[in-house]
Amino acid sequence: MPEFFKVVTPVQVFETLLGFNRLAVETVPLDDALHRVCGADITSPEDLPPLPRSTMDGYAVRAADTFGASDSIPTLLDVAGAVTMGQIPGITVGPGQAAAIPTGGFLPLGADAVVMVEYTGPAGESAIEISRPVTAGENVLGKAEDAARGDIVIPIGKRLLPQEIGLLAGLGITRVPVYRRPKAALISTGDEIVPVTDTPQPGMIRDINSHSIAALVRAAGGEVEMFDPVPDDPVLLRCALERALSSVDILVLSGGSSVGERDHMLRVVSSLPSAVVHAHGIAISPGKPTLIASVGEKPVFGLPGHPVSALVVAQVFLAPFLLYLQGQELKRTPAGMRVSAVLASSVHSAQGREDYVRVKLEKRQGFPAARPVFGKSGMLSTLVKADGFIVLPIHAEGLPAGETVDVFLF
Amino acid sequence: MPEFFKVVTPVQVFETLLGFNRLAVETVPLDDALHRVCGADITSPEDLPPLPRSTMDGYAVRAADTFGASDSIPTLLDVAGAVTMGQIPGITVGPGQAAAIPTGGFLPLGADAVVMVEYTGPAGESAIEISRPVTAGENVLGKAEDAARGDIVIPIGKRLLPQEIGLLAGLGITRVPVYRRPKAALISTGDEIVPVTDTPQPGMIRDINSHSIAALVRAAGGEVEMFDPVPDDPVLLRCALERALSSVDILVLSGGSSVGERDHMLRVVSSLPSAVVHAHGIAISPGKPTLIASVGEKPVFGLPGHPVSALVVAQVFLAPFLLYLQGQELKRTPAGMRVSAVLASSVHSAQGREDYVRVKLEKRQGFPAARPVFGKSGMLSTLVKADGFIVLPIHAEGLPAGETVDVFLF
Repeated sequence: MPEFFKVVTPVQVFETLLGFNRLAVETVPLDDALHRVCGADITSPEDLPPLPRSTMDGYAVRAADTFGASDSIPTLLDVAGAVTMGQIPGITVGPGQAAAIPTGGFLPLGADAVVMVEYTGPAGESAIEISRPVTAGENVLGKAEDAARGDIVIPIGKRLLPQEIGLLAGLGITRVPVYRRPKAALISTGDEIVPVTDTPQPGMIRDINSHSIAALVRAAGGEVEMFDPVPDDPVLLRCALERALSSVDILVLSGGSSVGERDHMLRVVSSLPSAVVHAHGIAISPGKPTLIASVGEKPVFGLPGHPVSALVVAQVFLAPFLLYLQGQELKRTPAGMRVSAVLASSVHSAQGREDYVRVKLEKRQGFPAARPVFGKSGMLSTLVKADGFIVLPIHAEGLPAGETVDVFLF
Repeated sequence: MPEFFKVVTPVQVFETLLGFNRLAVETVPLDDALHRVCGADITSPEDLPPLPRSTMDGYAVRAADTFGASDSIPTLLDVAGAVTMGQIPGITVGPGQAAAIPTGGFLPLGADAVVMVEYTGPAGESAIEISRPVTAGENVLGKAEDAARGDIVIPIGKRLLPQEIGLLAGLGITRVPVYRRPKAALISTGDEIVPVTDTPQPGMIRDINSHSIAALVRAAGGEVEMFDPVPDDPVLLRCALERALSSVDILVLSGGSSVGERDHMLRVVSSLPSAVVHAHGIAISPGKPTLIASVGEKPVFGLPGHPVSALVVAQVFLAPFLLYLQGQELKRTPAGMRVSAVLASSVHSAQGREDYVRVKLEKRQGFPAARPVFGKSGMLSTLVKADGFIVLPIHAEGLPAGETVDVFLF
C-alpha cells in the first residue's frame, strides 16, 4: 500500500498555520464593520461626554446645598431655570439655587450634582424642596468619564460587536480599520464530479464539497470564488490551481489528496513554484488524507474528497484558520458554539489519532446527553442528523458512557 | 410623576410577540441559503446513491465467496476487471471473481460487498488473495441508503448549516424555500441627536442607537433601512413613522418612549391607523421605558433612548423576535452564545423586575468567573468593557458571590 508522505498531528498542523501571516488591514464604513476584527488601536478623537451630563431627570444643584436634607426637614432651593436638551445651558446655578434638567442634559455652570425628580417637590412659584442630600458628582457623568481624548477605546484584535459599533458612532468614527476578509478559491476534483446544476450521467455524482465548504467559509467571514470541478488530470489540475492562485488569498481543494492512482494533488501542488508541503496526512479520523501546503505566501488546504470528512476537517482546521487570518487568535478548538453534555453510549477510538465522533443532542433527566450517530462512511445524512461532534484525544482509546464531553455544534 | 401606561412582565412580552405572524417564504439560490430557516419540508427528488457504491478502496466480491478466508488460509479470486470512477461498470462479478474498486465507485453486477485493499494481496497475473471474510453489504453504501426518493431530507423549520447545503447540492436542489429576512427601519429620536456624519453643535450628540441596533439587527439576520434622526416633534415623528412603515416589516425606534414632556412616542404610535399598544413599560432594568406595539400587522419596538438600555432590550427581546420572524422558535433567552461562570461578587436587584447585570469574564483557578461591571448609567464604555450579561429573575433580590450563573455573551 502506498503511504502518506508526511503525516503530522493536529498540534503540528496548528503550529504550521501560525506561521502564515494575517491578512492586511483595510478601512471600511462603520456600518460594515460588524464582526470584523479591529486592525489598529482606535483612540478617542474627543472627550465623551464633552461636558458633564445628567444621568437622571431632576434638578441640577450644588451638592453642598443639599447637606442634611430629609423628608422631615427638606432643603428649599430657588429654581434658576431649566436646561434644554440639545443646548449648552446659558444659566448658572448659584448657592441656594437649582435648575431643572432632563436625562442627558448638560450641567449648568455652578452645579456639580443632580437630585432625582423623585426626591423633589414644588415649593411655590419658583422654588423646590429637596428631601435627600446628594454628593458632588452624583447622577452626573463627568467630562470625559466615558472616553477621554487620546484614550484607546478599542484595541487592535478586538472583534467588533454592536456595542463597539455604538461607541464608534458616539465618537464620530465613521471609517474603521479592520483585517481584510480572506477570499478562498474552492475547487472540487474527481473524474466523477459534475457541477450541481448539471444532470449527472450514470456513474457521475454532483459536486457537494464546493457548496458545503463555501457555506463554511462564509460562516467564518470569508469570501468565496467558485470554480467548476476539475477531473483527475495533472495538467488540468495544475492549470486550475495556477488560475485560482492568481486571484485569491487561500486555495481550498477537495479530492485527490490521498495515495491512490488518481490522487495527483500532492504531486501537482508540490510542482508549483515556491510550494512547500507542510502535511500530507493528519493523524485524525475522519479526514486523514488531508494536504496542507503553501505556495509562496498563500495557504493551500487539500481536503479529502469525501464530503463528511471534508466538512469535519474544514470545521476543525480551516474555520479557525480563516478567523486567524482575519485578526482573531488561532483557536485550537473547532469553530462555533460548544455545549457540555453527558456521553449516552461509549465510543471507541484508535490510539495515535484524534477522532471526531458525530453526536446528536438529547435530553436525559433534563440534562443534555450526546448520543453518537453511527452510519457508514460516505453517508451525508449522518451529518445532517447530528447536532455536532466530540473530540477524542489522540492518546485516548475511547470514552465510557456517562463521561462529560464538550460537544462542538455544527 | 407621570406613570407608564401599561407595564408588563418579560413573560407577557414574549406572549405578545408570539402573536405576530412569521414572514412569508421565498425561494433563494442554494449558495445564499446558509443560516436561513427552511420554509417547507424538502423531499429527495431521487435515490442517493442511485446504485450501491463502495465506501473503501479494495475489491468488489460476492460475500459468500470470502467465507472462512484468513491470513493462514486466504481465499483466491480471479480479477474480472476494474471499476472506473465516473462510469457504471460494464463488468459482472461472477462466483469466484472480484473487481478492483475505488472509494465511491459503483458496485458491478453480481458483487454485494467490498474487501478493503489492506486485506488483499496479489496472486499471479489476474488473481488476488483475500485474508478476511466480509458479510453482504460490508463497505457498501446501499442504493438510497443516504436518502430515498420522496423522503423528507430537511424538515420545515430547520436552520440551514453547511452540511444541509451539502446534502441539497448532492441531491441537485439548487433553489431552496426559506423564510424571508425581516427588513427593519431604524429611527432615533431626540432634539439633541445628529447623524453620525455631522459635527455636533455644542449640546448635541451623535446618533449612536441607529448604528448599534442596526448591527444587532444584521447579526440576527435582518436587513436595515436607516433613517435620519427625528426631533421630539409629534408631527415630524408621525410623518417619519408613516414613511418608514410603508417600506419595511418592522419599525425599531429609540428615544421618546418614556413619560417625560418630550416623550411623544406613545401618543404618536397610538394615533396611527390600526395601532395597538401591547406594552408601555417593561418590568426590567435597564430598559423599563420600552414601547411594544403593532400597526396593522407590523411590529413596532420603541426602545429607550439610552444607548446601553436600548442595546440590552434589543438583545433580550428584539433579536430573538427577529429570529422568530425568520422561522426559528421564539427563544425566551437572550440571543447568542451562553457560558457558565461563577459570580465573582454579589449583586443586588429589586424584586418585581428582571435585572440584566453586565459582567466581565475572568479566569479564577482555571474556571470562568463573572465579575459585574459597574458604571454610571449612560456609560457606553461599560458595555464595551463587559463580555456579556447575567439575568436576575423577576422575583430575586440578588445573587450571592459564588453562585453559578449563565452569562449571555454579547
